[in-house]
Amino acid sequence: MTAGVTAMGGGGEFDRIRALLGPVAEDPRLRVGPGDDAAVIGDLVLSTDLTVEDVHFRREWLTLEEVGHRAVTVALSDLGAMGAEPVAVLLSLALPERDRAVAAAAAVGRGARAAAAAAGATLAGGDLTRSPGPLVADVVAVGHASDPVLRSTARAGDDLWVTGVLGGAAGAVEAWTSGSEPSPELRRRFTAPSPPLALLRDLGARAGITAALDLSDGLLADAGHLAAASGLRARVEVRRVPVDPALAGMDGTGALRLALEGGEDYQLLIAAPRSARSALEVSGPVRLTRVGELTPGHGVVRIEADGREVEVHGGGFDHFAGASS
Amino acid sequence: MTAGVTAMGGGGEFDRIRALLGPVAEDPRLRVGPGDDAAVIGDLVLSTDLTVEDVHFRREWLTLEEVGHRAVTVALSDLGAMGAEPVAVLLSLALPERDRAVAAAAAVGRGARAAAAAAGATLAGGDLTRSPGPLVADVVAVGHASDPVLRSTARAGDDLWVTGVLGGAAGAVEAWTSGSEPSPELRRRFTAPSPPLALLRDLGARAGITAALDLSDGLLADAGHLAAASGLRARVEVRRVPVDPALAGMDGTGALRLALEGGEDYQLLIAAPRSARSALEVSGPVRLTRVGELTPGHGVVRIEADGREVEVHGGGFDHFAGASS
Repeated sequence: MTAGVTAMGGGGEFDRIRALLGPVAEDPRLRVGPGDDAAVIGDLVLSTDLTVEDVHFRREWLTLEEVGHRAVTVALSDLGAMGAEPVAVLLSLALPERDRAVAAAAAVGRGARAAAAAAGATLAGGDLTRSPGPLVADVVAVGHASDPVLRSTARAGDDLWVTGVLGGAAGAVEAWTSGSEPSPELRRRFTAPSPPLALLRDLGARAGITAALDLSDGLLADAGHLAAASGLRARVEVRRVPVDPALAGMDGTGALRLALEGGEDYQLLIAAPRSARSALEVSGPVRLTRVGELTPGHGVVRIEADGREVEVHGGGFDHFAGASS
Repeated sequence: MTAGVTAMGGGGEFDRIRALLGPVAEDPRLRVGPGDDAAVIGDLVLSTDLTVEDVHFRREWLTLEEVGHRAVTVALSDLGAMGAEPVAVLLSLALPERDRAVAAAAAVGRGARAAAAAAGATLAGGDLTRSPGPLVADVVAVGHASDPVLRSTARAGDDLWVTGVLGGAAGAVEAWTSGSEPSPELRRRFTAPSPPLALLRDLGARAGITAALDLSDGLLADAGHLAAASGLRARVEVRRVPVDPALAGMDGTGALRLALEGGEDYQLLIAAPRSARSALEVSGPVRLTRVGELTPGHGVVRIEADGREVEVHGGGFDHFAGASS
């Protein structure tokens, strides 16, 4: 969600967030400020996530209940990426005039409450207004973490791991925007992402995890963000990347591209030392796949199946510039 | 900002917020849930406030820096109404494509940071996206209060007090919408509201204040909200209401109507027992005016200058239904 203080990868969105937040005040109450997934004040972790119709989704893709559920899930994902325990969410909603307001607000609220409850959090408040344009939902997620996992604390030599499988959400968007209907399984990757919210709490300290972030901009772009925040270079081994099996209908190149560059999967990218391999390789409920490593330097390099190394420039998507999703 | 659990006055906006938030979970972590100015979790107070272009303001009325300043000030006002000490704000911003993004984001951020700093809070994070429609800003204000002042705890026999002077913000909007330009002083009432953020911390317990809220919907409507939340009836003495001197150019009836029914002044409405009169009448930096009382019963009655009593039905404005502001 946030960006600014921590050293950052390139990208127009980051430049604009940095401009928005501006020079950050020295505030001893603020343990982690703009630049990580969430702000940390004392043991409190706060994340905000804005969802705008026709930027992040189209109305034909989602029911209003799914809009609420997804917006809350995505905000909670930032907490999960810091190993925070969710406590509460606040939902601000601007509803277009075409929506019959009470029923529409209730539907969004039902989805939001269900997503909050599933994570052990409470929908604690909100705001509601009309919108002369698109539906806009802003969710603030509030959690606790005594020892939050940052994105800036990875070390040279650490492995890079991802949770789950990648590319499904972008595959659903690609189906919709090309005029076809994604399979129900692929559709759910977009409408009902399932970030591993408790993973870092469950194994963070035990497995020696040094850094993490949630995959919202795509694996290559987010690997760049983690590497830049930690002052390192990311090496991603393409053949190791867990491509979503729900993309099976596509040709392999297309599916791999989505897994590398598609956004919005809300799985985790994790850095951990080699000594943690045995702990992380033990299969728990969340699938963990080692996809690369961090080395001294900067930038991102993808290692192709044939061993070629290709420097990555950009490689994710920018909501602000993009036409959709 | 919020509504739901606490008994509420009438009004379409409240119905929709109640529908949005739905049945509230029993959560022992949540000391004050939807229904008061802010949610309270432990000693943490959280408020969210959504500002939408062409609903809450028009672009011709405000610079982008003022948009940021005002959005943060209005969110902090909810904390002030609970006697909370501001700590941090988060700003989510959806910017229309017509804005040159970096400069526009920087301008909104400058205003937001200045407003946060003036209140002793830090701009700790945010989110930024494009909007295919209006500018939308959502601000979450985070504060601490060990003993928050609620709106539901007034007692029969309490006096009603207001801070500052009323009607100026609505007067500025009325000038703009009628095609004229408000005076610089009147304009500032809308563009730069100055809620008494520290008042309840300074004198809350000492002066025996029993309840408070911030005036966003207009004095009569908000008196109804406080009365309904406390299970009481509000009596407002019209001749006592402090009409904003910046409305001096208007006829007296119009100015009084704005002071009673205009919204967005972000001054406080306070309930306190008669025994607190001497403490509250001592003039501090914030002007306090006694405007009525709370009695057993329900609803709101205005006491006219000639002693007539007129029952109030509605009497504030509803952002969702209204065409502007």
